[in-house]
Amino acid sequence: MTGPPPAVADVRSAVRRALADLDAGDLVAVACSGGADSLALAGATAFVAPRMGLRAGGITVDHGLQAGSAERADEVRATLEGLGLGPVRAVRVAVGDGGGPEAAARSARYAALDDTARGMDARAVLLGHTRDDQAETVLLRLARGSGARSLAAMPLSSGRYLRPLLDLDRSTVHSACELMGLAAWQDPHNVDPAYARSRVRHEALPCLERTLGPGIAGALARTAGLLRDDADALDSWAENAAENAACGRGELDVLVLAELPRAVRTRVLRRAAIAAGCPAGALAVGHVAELDRLVTEWRGQAHVDLPGGLRGRRTGGRITIAV
Amino acid sequence: MTGPPPAVADVRSAVRRALADLDAGDLVAVACSGGADSLALAGATAFVAPRMGLRAGGITVDHGLQAGSAERADEVRATLEGLGLGPVRAVRVAVGDGGGPEAAARSARYAALDDTARGMDARAVLLGHTRDDQAETVLLRLARGSGARSLAAMPLSSGRYLRPLLDLDRSTVHSACELMGLAAWQDPHNVDPAYARSRVRHEALPCLERTLGPGIAGALARTAGLLRDDADALDSWAENAAENAACGRGELDVLVLAELPRAVRTRVLRRAAIAAGCPAGALAVGHVAELDRLVTEWRGQAHVDLPGGLRGRRTGGRITIAV
Repeated sequence: MTGPPPAVADVRSAVRRALADLDAGDLVAVACSGGADSLALAGATAFVAPRMGLRAGGITVDHGLQAGSAERADEVRATLEGLGLGPVRAVRVAVGDGGGPEAAARSARYAALDDTARGMDARAVLLGHTRDDQAETVLLRLARGSGARSLAAMPLSSGRYLRPLLDLDRSTVHSACELMGLAAWQDPHNVDPAYARSRVRHEALPCLERTLGPGIAGALARTAGLLRDDADALDSWAENAAENAACGRGELDVLVLAELPRAVRTRVLRRAAIAAGCPAGALAVGHVAELDRLVTEWRGQAHVDLPGGLRGRRTGGRITIAV
Repeated sequence: MTGPPPAVADVRSAVRRALADLDAGDLVAVACSGGADSLALAGATAFVAPRMGLRAGGITVDHGLQAGSAERADEVRATLEGLGLGPVRAVRVAVGDGGGPEAAARSARYAALDDTARGMDARAVLLGHTRDDQAETVLLRLARGSGARSLAAMPLSSGRYLRPLLDLDRSTVHSACELMGLAAWQDPHNVDPAYARSRVRHEALPCLERTLGPGIAGALARTAGLLRDDADALDSWAENAAENAACGRGELDVLVLAELPRAVRTRVLRRAAIAAGCPAGALAVGHVAELDRLVTEWRGQAHVDLPGGLRGRRTGGRITIAV
């Protein structure tokens, strides 16, 4: 008796590990675009879930951005049902235009996945991101020059979302898809150089492999994991420190702040700015650095202008952030 | 009356800021290869230091790796003396072969700079690294998949070493060199694709600029600064945590370790392994992760093999690392 080919076994094991904490009878939903990664995930979940006493359904999102997308969503639904998944939903979304085409499609997709998973009463939604997707995300985030939380990229689990394939490389997952006899759809956006992720995948990462050696995708993914741990630890420190520094009505005590390491102090200040109403996406490293100078390089600055029309001020040994 | 051209003014200001904490009469030594970066640094220091009441000398290191290197070291010495720097030393070193050609040259160079600076009684040694060098270092470190301390790359100051130009881009510094009328030496290693740094400079970073947009060098350098703050904060936490977890003869209390966030616990374990004699350079993320599993996924593992012939064990609620 022979087992499944190694690539199929790897994908199934990864799914089994990701589902280990669920309870018998729970429904998990595979989010599937019809691409090779999420199709392999669907095939492995269809095999693994019933053997673990779990129910497995599927969701495919039609972004309505390409000709024939509705027909393709129907085909994906049929494929998932053919694998034995159920219930399976194909959901059409309207993609807005906030934050660029990739960000708009992503936020429409996650809103639809959230809604549909709730409607199906799915305990978990499985996403097909691989280690290569993680490496691409790290590179895209690096270009912003932001810190550990951003470079931590995608978590293995967050709320109801699980990423069982995050430690597997794309080539393994693609092999598994083929070995399972599943015909994958090739998203033309994935090779369209108009998209930053496509440029990273087809130009930046291969170039880094040539210049820095193979294994760069694994190295980037490993770094993301380490920086996630760092960001978690520093956030917990900042949460405690913010309580210690609080002195009523959202004000922070300068003497308490001054004693903190800069990494913690800037996190406390960032949280305070967001709590006061600054839009998180618009609050840059430079804004927080200016707030920090009210603590560490105080020479009577009038105020610091922050996004959302807010201002940071230092008065009477306290930092306030308000309109 | 007109001031100096902006690039020259930028380099001089950067040197002035870096030297602000020194005391009148102190000697600073510019480490100069004869390349444009360190030559601009030498020119700016020769201008700025006397106006701040400081003395400025120079050191050039002859690695003896290229034909004519001794003559070039003499030329650099003459150039530095021509700028008014003194004393100026040209030091010949013998480059070993440990850790690859770049690492061997670097360790011979820093040993010579240390010795010479001590002999000259120099309070500070100024290095010509720019923001672009910093970005290259971050990319080289990323390829290793290591954590925040490694990605923090080069500090603005460390011991007697200062890097006044670390926030300036190379093009500004090169312009300043030219505008000061200094003839820079082009190190052929800088364009030799046999060297990883050269490949990063001439292939990887331009490719990232093309795919991710300009400003990637600045973004990488900004990230390095943020991760340095993170690493400093986490190291200070780990230092305290190690004291709390210590229970005699280098043993660590599992119950104390288990309460720590993973980022802190792994740092405590890493420090303990190094303190027990593991060579730091050989101690990989994976080794520390195995030690961590003795705490978090204990199921009676026999021991963890560590570099240097050491072993990590869990006995009686304690972690020990020993031969």
